[in-house]
Amino acid sequence: MIDRLMEKIEQMKNPSVVGLDPTYEMIPSKIKSEMLKRFGKTPKAVAEMIIAFNTELINCIHDVAPAVKPQIAMYEKYGLEGVRAYVATTEYAKQKGMIVIGDIKRGDIASTAEAYAAHIAGITIEGEPFDLWHEDAVTLNPYLGFDGIEPFIKPCIQQDKGLFILVKTSNPSSGQLQDIDASGMTVYERMAELVDEWGKLAMGTSGYSKIGAVVGATYKEQGEALRQKMPHTFFLVPGYGAQGGKGSDLKGFFDREGRGCIVNSSRGIIAAYKANGKLGEDRFGEAAREAALKMREDLRF
Amino acid sequence: MIDRLMEKIEQMKNPSVVGLDPTYEMIPSKIKSEMLKRFGKTPKAVAEMIIAFNTELINCIHDVAPAVKPQIAMYEKYGLEGVRAYVATTEYAKQKGMIVIGDIKRGDIASTAEAYAAHIAGITIEGEPFDLWHEDAVTLNPYLGFDGIEPFIKPCIQQDKGLFILVKTSNPSSGQLQDIDASGMTVYERMAELVDEWGKLAMGTSGYSKIGAVVGATYKEQGEALRQKMPHTFFLVPGYGAQGGKGSDLKGFFDREGRGCIVNSSRGIIAAYKANGKLGEDRFGEAAREAALKMREDLRF
Repeated sequence: MIDRLMEKIEQMKNPSVVGLDPTYEMIPSKIKSEMLKRFGKTPKAVAEMIIAFNTELINCIHDVAPAVKPQIAMYEKYGLEGVRAYVATTEYAKQKGMIVIGDIKRGDIASTAEAYAAHIAGITIEGEPFDLWHEDAVTLNPYLGFDGIEPFIKPCIQQDKGLFILVKTSNPSSGQLQDIDASGMTVYERMAELVDEWGKLAMGTSGYSKIGAVVGATYKEQGEALRQKMPHTFFLVPGYGAQGGKGSDLKGFFDREGRGCIVNSSRGIIAAYKANGKLGEDRFGEAAREAALKMREDLRF
Repeated sequence: MIDRLMEKIEQMKNPSVVGLDPTYEMIPSKIKSEMLKRFGKTPKAVAEMIIAFNTELINCIHDVAPAVKPQIAMYEKYGLEGVRAYVATTEYAKQKGMIVIGDIKRGDIASTAEAYAAHIAGITIEGEPFDLWHEDAVTLNPYLGFDGIEPFIKPCIQQDKGLFILVKTSNPSSGQLQDIDASGMTVYERMAELVDEWGKLAMGTSGYSKIGAVVGATYKEQGEALRQKMPHTFFLVPGYGAQGGKGSDLKGFFDREGRGCIVNSSRGIIAAYKANGKLGEDRFGEAAREAALKMREDLRF
């Protein structure tokens, strides 16, 4: 997966991933009123809105951005119907040739992590194989240590899947736990060492591991230092745009060849029509494409 | 929720929660063959197996155990159909008067946590309210700090819901991050301080907060020390039985009045029929009830 991702980034000259994190407020009114009319004020209506919104977004960005990262919370919010929209989204993005990073941030004890690993490993039922989540990679939370990560490593190796483990997150309170001073280094720096070590278990052919790290765009110096500290760990970088980061801030998150990092933007792309004076809300897909191309330029340094 | 939970524990004289964490291997062959016959080798068949299994378990334990804790991973494993089985399970347990603790261990940045909070807060669609997950409380992961917790506090206060935040987990590698030495205390001890502090934002009338902590049964001394350190924080304790803990080890996890703690057992109850020589697999529900009653005795000290 990491090799395929890096190849797609290279081909498209675009180290960015589109965060498919739709909110009810983002759905253009035409889609909204159609689905409310057809399905009433129901979770099914919202699921259909999300599917229609995401389908058009994927149609408009799949040839300019290598990957999508749907945040599963935005879908879980709408219960079972929301999860249906999530699965429809990952399936469609994959069909259109995009790499799908499921932003699920799961993390649990070994036997439970084994079950969660089905996200990327698939399952078999009486010998019949199923890939039910259509994800190439997922994000994981390391609070429980290696137990919670290990079951995901086998599918990385055997099925060419990938992981991104939280190291330093982009949010304001990330430091409450992550920046705790732990005998000369912070907790996130210790996590960085662990993730780099775990990464050796599943190296790609590109020099980077299939086990990557989440490093927030909003902590510039920390990201640059982590780049030095984790030479074989690919970074997934949230927090660009809406959360405050910008392209030139991120140069140090990449290696000297301009590789090793993919930057996520969600609202800035999928809700770009709101800030676009020229294109109205019916042309939200075109606005997203324009924003994706603009982001690609912003990341060229 | 915490007051209701404590009242039910008092009434039933049983501080235990049944972990509804079904695996394919646990499903009795009669249910398995029926569903495979009706639905083929499909996720739908497995979902129906899980629903049938859980329904009988809930029928047999709802008057002896105050709460259930379904581990959502066991359901997510089977994709959308699995999530349908999860929702059917939480809904039925609630109907039967049980407290439902969703073991979801979510944790994310504020805007995302806001979406996850729908698990306990419900949602409205154009003014229509929906409770789509049927959970009274959920478990949360604190790696992102308070940002990821805050959106869950309002429903705790306004809708009488509850939280259990990971502090010290029961698994072997929990120490990798949680036991890191952080200037004279461990990371989990620092987390304990934070959780106890956050707990003040949503106190119940019983002296305990609606914001509780997950503290693993497998770390006896640590649990006892945390009980002293967190006098107003209710503990959810996994790791009893199958993971190695036993009743008498846990005395120190309770306060002097024998309150402040609920102990989870999963496999030891729901798969009790496997170890029960007397009752065959068709009577798995009775075996679960016997095991639940035995656990209640084991926790009487």
